[in-house]
Amino acid sequence: MILVDGVAQSQVDATDRNLHYGDGLFETLAVFAGEIRCWEDHWRRLSEGCQRLGLPCPDPALLEHEVSELSKNTDRKVVKILLTRGSGPRGYRVQPGAAPRRILIANDWPDHPPQHAQEGVRVRLCQTRLGHNPALAGLKHCNRLEQVLARQEWQDEAEEGLMLDLDGNVIEGTMSNVFLVRENTLVTPALSRCGVAGVTRQRIIDRSPKLGIPVEISKVGLEQVEEAQALFLCNTLIGLWPVRSFEGRDYPLSDLLPTLRTIDGLEVS
Amino acid sequence: MILVDGVAQSQVDATDRNLHYGDGLFETLAVFAGEIRCWEDHWRRLSEGCQRLGLPCPDPALLEHEVSELSKNTDRKVVKILLTRGSGPRGYRVQPGAAPRRILIANDWPDHPPQHAQEGVRVRLCQTRLGHNPALAGLKHCNRLEQVLARQEWQDEAEEGLMLDLDGNVIEGTMSNVFLVRENTLVTPALSRCGVAGVTRQRIIDRSPKLGIPVEISKVGLEQVEEAQALFLCNTLIGLWPVRSFEGRDYPLSDLLPTLRTIDGLEVS
Repeated sequence: MILVDGVAQSQVDATDRNLHYGDGLFETLAVFAGEIRCWEDHWRRLSEGCQRLGLPCPDPALLEHEVSELSKNTDRKVVKILLTRGSGPRGYRVQPGAAPRRILIANDWPDHPPQHAQEGVRVRLCQTRLGHNPALAGLKHCNRLEQVLARQEWQDEAEEGLMLDLDGNVIEGTMSNVFLVRENTLVTPALSRCGVAGVTRQRIIDRSPKLGIPVEISKVGLEQVEEAQALFLCNTLIGLWPVRSFEGRDYPLSDLLPTLRTIDGLEVS
Repeated sequence: MILVDGVAQSQVDATDRNLHYGDGLFETLAVFAGEIRCWEDHWRRLSEGCQRLGLPCPDPALLEHEVSELSKNTDRKVVKILLTRGSGPRGYRVQPGAAPRRILIANDWPDHPPQHAQEGVRVRLCQTRLGHNPALAGLKHCNRLEQVLARQEWQDEAEEGLMLDLDGNVIEGTMSNVFLVRENTLVTPALSRCGVAGVTRQRIIDRSPKLGIPVEISKVGLEQVEEAQALFLCNTLIGLWPVRSFEGRDYPLSDLLPTLRTIDGLEVS
C-alpha cells in the first residue's frame, strides 16, 4: 500500500523532481505492532537532511499518523518515507512555493534467515567505488546510482558488499554501515566525504560508551578490516549482523555483540 | 504531453527506481519541425550510458517515433527522454528481467531572450562543488542533487553558474558545458571525474579542428578562465551562449563564434 500526500494511490506525477534528479530524501522505518522503532532518530535525520537540501520538512505528527495508517493490524512492517521536492517544470531551478511531496510505501518485513544475525553473513568487496561528494555526504538522499552499480556486481554468493571510496578507504556496505572491533574498541568509518550516516550506526556511537565499549570514528583502510578482531554490519531492518567472512577471510563472533544488542532498537527481530 | 512506455499519461508507478535512486538516464532533445537535432549524437550517448549502467536500451526507431508523436505540428519543441530501470521492489538490487521504462515529456521551447546568444550572458561562480564520481562521470544520469543545490544559490542576477570540482578545477555550468578561447584555441575541461559530456560539447570538439580551430581538452583552473580571451557556454537548447561577464569581469565576444555557428546543429535558433 502506498500513500502519496496522504492519499492511497500507486502512481506519482511524472514531473516529480525525484524522478528527474533524485531531488529528495528517504527513511526506511521498522514498525513493530504500530510503533516506529527509533522514530525520533529517523525524524532528526530527515529534518537535518531537509535543512541541508533546502527542502521544507513535513510535520512529524503527520508522518507518524500516515506510517501508522500503513502498518495498522500488522506485527511488523517496513515503511519507506520518500520525501521529494514535488513537481516542477523542466530545469534544476526550484520554483518559489514548490510544494514537497511525501510518498509512504509499506512493504512486508524482509525474510532474512535468523542465522544472519546469529551466525553472521558473508561479505564481499565491491569494485564500484564511492565517489567524494562532501556536500551530500551522510545524507540519505535519492542519488544512489553507485549503490545500484555496486549491488549489480554479485547475486547470492554474499549477503552484503563493502564499498571503498576513491582513496581506498572502507566506507560502508551497499545497504548497511560497518563497524570493526579492534582491541575491544568499536571503529567505524568517518563519513565526511561519502556514505550514509545510518540511524543504527549513530545509536551505537551514542550508546556504546555508556555500556563500557569505546567507539572511534576514523579513516579505515582495508588492512584494518583484515586485522580486525571482528566485524559487523548494521541498519534499521537487520539490526546487527556479524560478518562471518569477508573476501575469503573468516571472522569470529565478537563477544561485544550481546552487550550491543541490549541497546534499545538493536535487539534481533 | 507525456508518454509513458508509449501511452499518454501524466503519472508513473510509485515504485519506479528513478523515483527512489535516480536509477536512469535522460536526454533533452531540440525538435524543429518534427526533426530531432543531432539525434544520432543523443542516441549514441544514451546507448553508451545504458551500457555503463547495465540498462537495456530501447529501440532508437521507437524513441524517434514517440518523439515525433510528441512534437508533431509544432515549429519547435523540447522533448525530454527519461529512461529508467523501471519498477522494482525495495532495495538496490536489480531484479532479473526488470523492464526499463521510457518517459517522454514534451515542453514548450524556452523563451530565452535572443540577446543571450547575440550579446552574451552573465555567469557567476557556484559555491556548491561537483564531487568526484569517476564511475558516473560524463553520463547524463539522474543523480543531479549537486546541480539542484548549485542552482539554488541565485535567482535572476545571472543566466548560468560555473561549477568547480573538489580540487577547484572548472568543470561546467549547472546546465551547460563551457569552453575558453586561449590563443585562438578552444579549451574545454576534461570530464573524467565529474561533469556531463554534452552532445553539443562533443560536436564542437569533433568539428572545430576541421574548421581550422584547434581544441584542447584539459584541466582548467579559475585563473585560466580569468585570463581567457573569451568564454562561451553550450547545450542542445541554447546552442552557443557567449559569456559577457563572469564574477565581475567582462569578456568580449570571440571572433570564432560565427565560424563555430556554421557547425550543423549549433546555429542560433
